[in-house]
Amino acid sequence: MTIPETVRFEGGIDGRLFMIDQTLLPQEFTEILCPTVEVVWEAIKKLRVRGAPAIGIAAGFGVVIGVQPALDKSRAEFDARLAEVIDYLATSRPTAVNLFWALDRLKKVGLNAGAEESPRDVAEKLLAEALQIQSDDRAICRAIGKYGSALIQDGWGVHTHCNAGGLATADFGTALGVCFACAEEGKKIHVYADETRPLLQGARLTTWELMQRGIPVTLICDNMAAQVMREGRVQAAVVGADRIAANGDAANKIGTYQLAIVAKEHGVPFYVAAPKSTFDLSIATGVEIPIEQRDPKEVTCGFGKQTAPDGVDVYNPAFDVTPAKYITGIITEFGVISPVTEENVRKALGE
Amino acid sequence: MTIPETVRFEGGIDGRLFMIDQTLLPQEFTEILCPTVEVVWEAIKKLRVRGAPAIGIAAGFGVVIGVQPALDKSRAEFDARLAEVIDYLATSRPTAVNLFWALDRLKKVGLNAGAEESPRDVAEKLLAEALQIQSDDRAICRAIGKYGSALIQDGWGVHTHCNAGGLATADFGTALGVCFACAEEGKKIHVYADETRPLLQGARLTTWELMQRGIPVTLICDNMAAQVMREGRVQAAVVGADRIAANGDAANKIGTYQLAIVAKEHGVPFYVAAPKSTFDLSIATGVEIPIEQRDPKEVTCGFGKQTAPDGVDVYNPAFDVTPAKYITGIITEFGVISPVTEENVRKALGE
Repeated sequence: MTIPETVRFEGGIDGRLFMIDQTLLPQEFTEILCPTVEVVWEAIKKLRVRGAPAIGIAAGFGVVIGVQPALDKSRAEFDARLAEVIDYLATSRPTAVNLFWALDRLKKVGLNAGAEESPRDVAEKLLAEALQIQSDDRAICRAIGKYGSALIQDGWGVHTHCNAGGLATADFGTALGVCFACAEEGKKIHVYADETRPLLQGARLTTWELMQRGIPVTLICDNMAAQVMREGRVQAAVVGADRIAANGDAANKIGTYQLAIVAKEHGVPFYVAAPKSTFDLSIATGVEIPIEQRDPKEVTCGFGKQTAPDGVDVYNPAFDVTPAKYITGIITEFGVISPVTEENVRKALGE
Repeated sequence: MTIPETVRFEGGIDGRLFMIDQTLLPQEFTEILCPTVEVVWEAIKKLRVRGAPAIGIAAGFGVVIGVQPALDKSRAEFDARLAEVIDYLATSRPTAVNLFWALDRLKKVGLNAGAEESPRDVAEKLLAEALQIQSDDRAICRAIGKYGSALIQDGWGVHTHCNAGGLATADFGTALGVCFACAEEGKKIHVYADETRPLLQGARLTTWELMQRGIPVTLICDNMAAQVMREGRVQAAVVGADRIAANGDAANKIGTYQLAIVAKEHGVPFYVAAPKSTFDLSIATGVEIPIEQRDPKEVTCGFGKQTAPDGVDVYNPAFDVTPAKYITGIITEFGVISPVTEENVRKALGE
């Protein structure tokens, strides 16, 4: 099957927005239509769409959907509606940096529109900006894939964690984009996917994406990574990132740091694949990155069934920070940063 | 609440056998009565009783239950029944070494009985042997607890994996026995319990045992161990073992090896708590220990809900082997083996 893009806009300013409902995967593949901004908001809130770039893309198109009822109203009414829609979407997932980044881009388009422009003219510009966010991300992922695949040899096993794939981005992914690029170039690779507790994005989404593309993948529990490496099954690990400090310390899904330690112990090169937008040079080191604590129920009732005693204390950090010293290289859309040092990060980012 | 022992025999040779149904924990605490050997067989088969020592204890009492219908028959009929019951119980869990070890002990009691002894006389000896297996294990666990607690300081965090507790043994456990001994001595410790995918013995059983005894415990996913150690929350790790080679390499629940690597990286001492019966000196190193592969469904459908795509390839090793170099010490009933070398292992075992 040909997989549609995670977020897909059809037609012009009167067009329609579709998203893959990721909460139903892998058992059910369903595209949901988002006829109103409320449906977009709910999709972001309920993680039907997830992954930093994909959330940004969804928000961009969500603004276009949100202003559709005001296309034939006065410019003042349209502007009011635009502001309202942007404020509303911002409340859908308050910790998602890409959400605000995308909404800001659309807000600026609105603010920069000339007073003489009609609502439909402004809407055209909003749609163009949303499409640009999407196509930029598509190009970024392709470039990451290209640079990353140069690091992977034919016949290798590749370890990954969580889901940094097409579902999380415009269409190709970052860490999985590296795998997809390898496959497109004819390299035979075999991916080992950590299931990624507590929310099982690896089991649910990463395996699904790889199977859809016909790339061999084996699912393991997170605690099996060391055994897989000890048996010589993987020759590289590639993961995504949510935020990277100036010195190259990388925050990513919980369990990434542990995987990096295990990779180092087995001499397996450990790569982080992430676009330039993931770097936050205002943060000197990973120590400054706050670790979000999540609902204990994700751990105790994660599978539709309670699996721990009532009232048990749970520690459930959403992320961890992998210090730069464990990272062999950071694969970006403008090349690979290696060794990972503050000097090399700043140089690569043109600072 | 006072927790009864995992396996409990009440009365004399006409007595009754009870077991805690571990498959219902932690939501439901139920002792099941085992009036026939078939019920004992089913309890072992279905993991209602689990943990190497507990299985051995259950099998010993299972033999007594099994011969009850032949107590007032001829000696020849009794002997035939005894042989039949032992062969039958041996089929309940063919990979459990302790099952065969316990059944062999009871078989010898039967073989050594004088021809003049009545079925009731032989049954008394069988019951005495079964009780001995249980009380030996109780004493072994207490001794392990005592030696282990000497390694743990007041105020420490202690990391553990899977369940090496009272549920798996006569009543005190090996790795958890160390924690219980600390508590009995008035040391305040805080346990971090890995949930232990795929079967969640840590989430379901270890947390429950600690909570019953009022010892502070925090449940984490297996992939959070490195983060917990990085934050300085634990000062020691203690796990059980299923089989230990002559050089000290230790096989234990999958994920133990990974935890050992992570502990080493953070300078956290890593202890294995196991009785002398766990050592297999016929095996030179852990490389010779075969790794059992288990049903992929444990990973993909472990919680009453499918969490991975249909037909996904799964790698599901039940155990891994932690090389001796990662083990700070092996806590046994006759002291702590440290450093863990073949010479020290053989010396400690009196070889």
